[in-house]
Amino acid sequence: MPMAVLKSFLLVIFSLAITRTATAGDPNILTDFIVATNDTNPDGSFFTYKGFRTLYQHKPPSTLKVLKAGLAEFPALNGQSVSYAVLDYPAGSMNPPHTHPRSAELLFLVRGSLQVGFVDTTNKLFTQTLQAGDLFVFPKGLVHFQYNADPHKLALAISAFGSANAGTVSLPNTLFASGIDDNVLAISFKTDVTTIQALKAGLAPKP
Amino acid sequence: MPMAVLKSFLLVIFSLAITRTATAGDPNILTDFIVATNDTNPDGSFFTYKGFRTLYQHKPPSTLKVLKAGLAEFPALNGQSVSYAVLDYPAGSMNPPHTHPRSAELLFLVRGSLQVGFVDTTNKLFTQTLQAGDLFVFPKGLVHFQYNADPHKLALAISAFGSANAGTVSLPNTLFASGIDDNVLAISFKTDVTTIQALKAGLAPKP
Amino acid sequence: MPMAVLKSFLLVIFSLAITRTATAGDPNILTDFIVATNDTNPDGSFFTYKGFRTLYQHKPPSTLKVLKAGLAEFPALNGQSVSYAVLDYPAGSMNPPHTHPRSAELLFLVRGSLQVGFVDTTNKLFTQTLQAGDLFVFPKGLVHFQYNADPHKLALAISAFGSANAGTVSLPNTLFASGIDDNVLAISFKTDVTTIQALKAGLAPKP
Amino acid sequence: MPMAVLKSFLLVIFSLAITRTATAGDPNILTDFIVATNDTNPDGSFFTYKGFRTLYQHKPPSTLKVLKAGLAEFPALNGQSVSYAVLDYPAGSMNPPHTHPRSAELLFLVRGSLQVGFVDTTNKLFTQTLQAGDLFVFPKGLVHFQYNADPHKLALAISAFGSANAGTVSLPNTLFASGIDDNVLAISFKTDVTTIQALKAGLAPKP
Amino acid sequence: MPMAVLKSFLLVIFSLAITRTATAGDPNILTDFIVATNDTNPDGSFFTYKGFRTLYQHKPPSTLKVLKAGLAEFPALNGQSVSYAVLDYPAGSMNPPHTHPRSAELLFLVRGSLQVGFVDTTNKLFTQTLQAGDLFVFPKGLVHFQYNADPHKLALAISAFGSANAGTVSLPNTLFASGIDDNVLAISFKTDVTTIQALKAGLAPKP
Amino acid sequence: MPMAVLKSFLLVIFSLAITRTATAGDPNILTDFIVATNDTNPDGSFFTYKGFRTLYQHKPPSTLKVLKAGLAEFPALNGQSVSYAVLDYPAGSMNPPHTHPRSAELLFLVRGSLQVGFVDTTNKLFTQTLQAGDLFVFPKGLVHFQYNADPHKLALAISAFGSANAGTVSLPNTLFASGIDDNVLAISFKTDVTTIQALKAGLAPKP
Repeated sequence: MPMAVLKSFLLVIFSLAITRTATAGDPNILTDFIVATNDTNPDGSFFTYKGFRTLYQHKPPSTLKVLKAGLAEFPALNGQSVSYAVLDYPAGSMNPPHTHPRSAELLFLVRGSLQVGFVDTTNKLFTQTLQAGDLFVFPKGLVHFQYNADPHKLALAISAFGSANAGTVSLPNTLFASGIDDNVLAISFKTDVTTIQALKAGLAPKP
Repeated sequence: MPMAVLKSFLLVIFSLAITRTATAGDPNILTDFIVATNDTNPDGSFFTYKGFRTLYQHKPPSTLKVLKAGLAEFPALNGQSVSYAVLDYPAGSMNPPHTHPRSAELLFLVRGSLQVGFVDTTNKLFTQTLQAGDLFVFPKGLVHFQYNADPHKLALAISAFGSANAGTVSLPNTLFASGIDDNVLAISFKTDVTTIQALKAGLAPKP
Repeated sequence: MPMAVLKSFLLVIFSLAITRTATAGDPNILTDFIVATNDTNPDGSFFTYKGFRTLYQHKPPSTLKVLKAGLAEFPALNGQSVSYAVLDYPAGSMNPPHTHPRSAELLFLVRGSLQVGFVDTTNKLFTQTLQAGDLFVFPKGLVHFQYNADPHKLALAISAFGSANAGTVSLPNTLFASGIDDNVLAISFKTDVTTIQALKAGLAPKP
Repeated sequence: MPMAVLKSFLLVIFSLAITRTATAGDPNILTDFIVATNDTNPDGSFFTYKGFRTLYQHKPPSTLKVLKAGLAEFPALNGQSVSYAVLDYPAGSMNPPHTHPRSAELLFLVRGSLQVGFVDTTNKLFTQTLQAGDLFVFPKGLVHFQYNADPHKLALAISAFGSANAGTVSLPNTLFASGIDDNVLAISFKTDVTTIQALKAGLAPKP
Repeated sequence: MPMAVLKSFLLVIFSLAITRTATAGDPNILTDFIVATNDTNPDGSFFTYKGFRTLYQHKPPSTLKVLKAGLAEFPALNGQSVSYAVLDYPAGSMNPPHTHPRSAELLFLVRGSLQVGFVDTTNKLFTQTLQAGDLFVFPKGLVHFQYNADPHKLALAISAFGSANAGTVSLPNTLFASGIDDNVLAISFKTDVTTIQALKAGLAPKP
Repeated sequence: MPMAVLKSFLLVIFSLAITRTATAGDPNILTDFIVATNDTNPDGSFFTYKGFRTLYQHKPPSTLKVLKAGLAEFPALNGQSVSYAVLDYPAGSMNPPHTHPRSAELLFLVRGSLQVGFVDTTNKLFTQTLQAGDLFVFPKGLVHFQYNADPHKLALAISAFGSANAGTVSLPNTLFASGIDDNVLAISFKTDVTTIQALKAGLAPKP
């Protein structure tokens, strides 16, 4: 195959692999690592991610702020089955109930305190109040939340995932801000359409 | 190899599979199948499940009824990465939003019609109205629902899962009937505690 | 190894990893789902398969008819590790011994009765006579068959697989209609070439 | 870490590996290796298998002889996803059509010549005549055979498998010596019961 | 399902998970989580690990100190495919070349600066100098090291692994403090026995 | 299914496997095998590798010679999770300490004798002296070596791997011939820069 053809072909595969599909990754890979399409000679900088430096210059956010370092932000994670998120909780802020379809989450509370919980598939709730230095594991695919109940102090956590792209399903938004029919939701939550519409209004993105 | 040796060998393999080795199912297994601990000589009946026969004698249920054939009901599925559920929808009934943490779901609508939908991790809603004979795939780990909107006719579906124990997280119950703190839910859903308590009351198990 | 050779080797490995290698599918995927290359904006219809609707208009077939919904027919199954087949057995018809190299099979007998069996790797035969409503699991990779012994009534089954592309190796055809040398078969089956040729003639596709 | 602590730690890991954790082999394991239950202090001999030494003292067999080094013979292979078989083909001998449900086979012909073949799931036959030094790969789960067509010379091969327990389904025996009903076989192979009974008689174990 | 049934069901699932089923961790599990054998009713504290609290009371160590939260320290990680280590580097300290056989490592430099590097299977070295806030990924199974070259300031990093038990092979110790024969090492490193003995003496544990 | 349809189907499957899919390797594949991009009609020769024939014509090498049959040399191994290496040890030669990041190694000593050893993650050394006919398994990812201590006789071994591309990290070269800074190595090995430079000089490729 001539080089030019190889390169175009390579480009196609990569755009597939990276942007939409698939890829490699959490299944085992057959190479040491996977490089980006147009990177013919990767060096140490390909394996370095600087997007978390902002943590050191930041003013505390006014609402929950999640900084991710996953497949989308850091392509060298492709095939390595690991990623990070840093969570910055202002006083009184909530990370509402959500799931990660492709990984467990191992949270390390760096600063402050945090009320955490998850619900297993038998509908049993597990909760804990964490102090700085504590770890908590949210098992794969289960609904969980974190709440900084302190009215004055911020909390800061770092979470590790056993997948380069764990994915997040935020339940308030998935249920009430994705366009599911009012009637479907009213029946599902055994309430009336008026209540559903009020919930939707509260969760709608602000203009 | 003489039969006696073969049998001892088989026994060794089985005891390996059972007592030491293990593996539950969905990862590949190292034996043809995994038998229950106290079943020293399984025959064809071990691989047969009769719990669905009731479908043929049943009176239509008054609320959604789900009949499962998974690892708990049918132990021969251990290690075979597949299971079934049959869903019986009375007119107007809902299978409320839920996820399966360990498998995609491939639904085959046997009778009636059904409105189905799921939401992906970018919060995009995908819906479809199915007629008898249609298949719909709900990707692994995503929130989905089915609604028999017909006011008079029942609907019947069979769903296949690529795991012997897909698990189910029913979201109305997980969120509002597992004991999560009112305040956590009120902040998460951007509403007040009164609304949360009303939702909880509606979803509480009837005495 | 000199550096130049090393580099070429690296290139080969990379191009292998990228251009050729591959596979989608039953290993875990890193995205919610995998869309077809030219489908830039999939909607609910991408996740819907209508090929089984014909079951509702069909005249009973005169020979065994298998309708599949796998990766080839229903591309949304890519990466979801599940697929279906519907099997339509006229009275007296046989699904001859075969294997599925990539999945166990979970058969649900919807109508009629069926004699089923499989043989494990110790050459032990497991059989069962199923009635409508029964499930039977054929473990991954083992030889199995189904026979509608009833002289008058048809049988209908739906089978689920824990792979989007389980594959089928039909043994009569694989052995006697793929072109394997007469002599190889005669020695293998401890018979004469005349018998092999007779078997081949019986199994040859009709003109 | 002091040695004593290390040892306790090791013990914990081992007991995890054995009593609780486990996993059978071919899925990844969470320990370096898996030791037998009653082996508290394995040394180098646990990782050594001497069963192939007989190859160096052997008189050529009069029929095909297969020597295996898999999970049953060599327990240290548990969790390591690899095993061996040595195949000793007298002149004119056949390894009849068979499958390995849990692995591909990579055959290395050490001595003599060999006709080999396999059939894929589209019923296409692939054949090759190998000479000493050649390798041939039989893909996972497909029907394959080897035939030493030379009337005078023996052949010797070593085969590697990517599973500690690949399993073998010998098709002549599975089909005609496991007790499958004559009628089922006659219909499946489009022949008469007399032919089936003759085949069964030929393949029956000699008293 | 009534609570009592649910609980029995849960118990069954747990006993399956523990006694029979198992699976060690990193392959997928068939349950939400895996509890310790004697823990019949786990609560939130089972999913909490407090061993990192010492980080908040600690005096800076005089040599490199690694604090782990893996399967051995935190049993709830079983089956969840993720773990942590915190690395505390005094000024001028080294984490010498090592590998993790079961996972990539994603290092987040919390404080200070760090020279890092790894070597791929083509013997190419990748290096980088990290500042606080930087991430670096060491691909699975490759040799890597970290060096705090600053003569005055400490460095602190947290590393995530995509396995509950990544394992560590420290190369100076593995090679020169495990008892490998002097002669084997001298030939391997193309040096003399005297040099090997000097290296061994330097790396021997202090009495 | 008629042949023409079958072929188109095959083509679709192949193009799926090749163009769309994704990632590398040893995870399960969704097709029988994976062909090279430009090979539209593979036959038996695609599954045959002749690179080991040279073993039968070879003069004994003067230094250790390793002949590989992996993904790079034999593309049909793609997706089949198995590969080979043949190792030719002149009298007194060493295969220095190394690891394979992606597979265990199962060595079969064909001729001569061999001292082998590996070190586990607790730094325990396991050694054995093998004679012709012995097998030894080096667990996945651990440091191991082989030494032909006999001053006169050559040794010959064949090794199987449970991956098509096991990878090799040769430790003397990785540590002392990849360009790692002298100072990093001196601190790591608790020696001086002069010793490191002497080791580097000994291991540097000869001009």
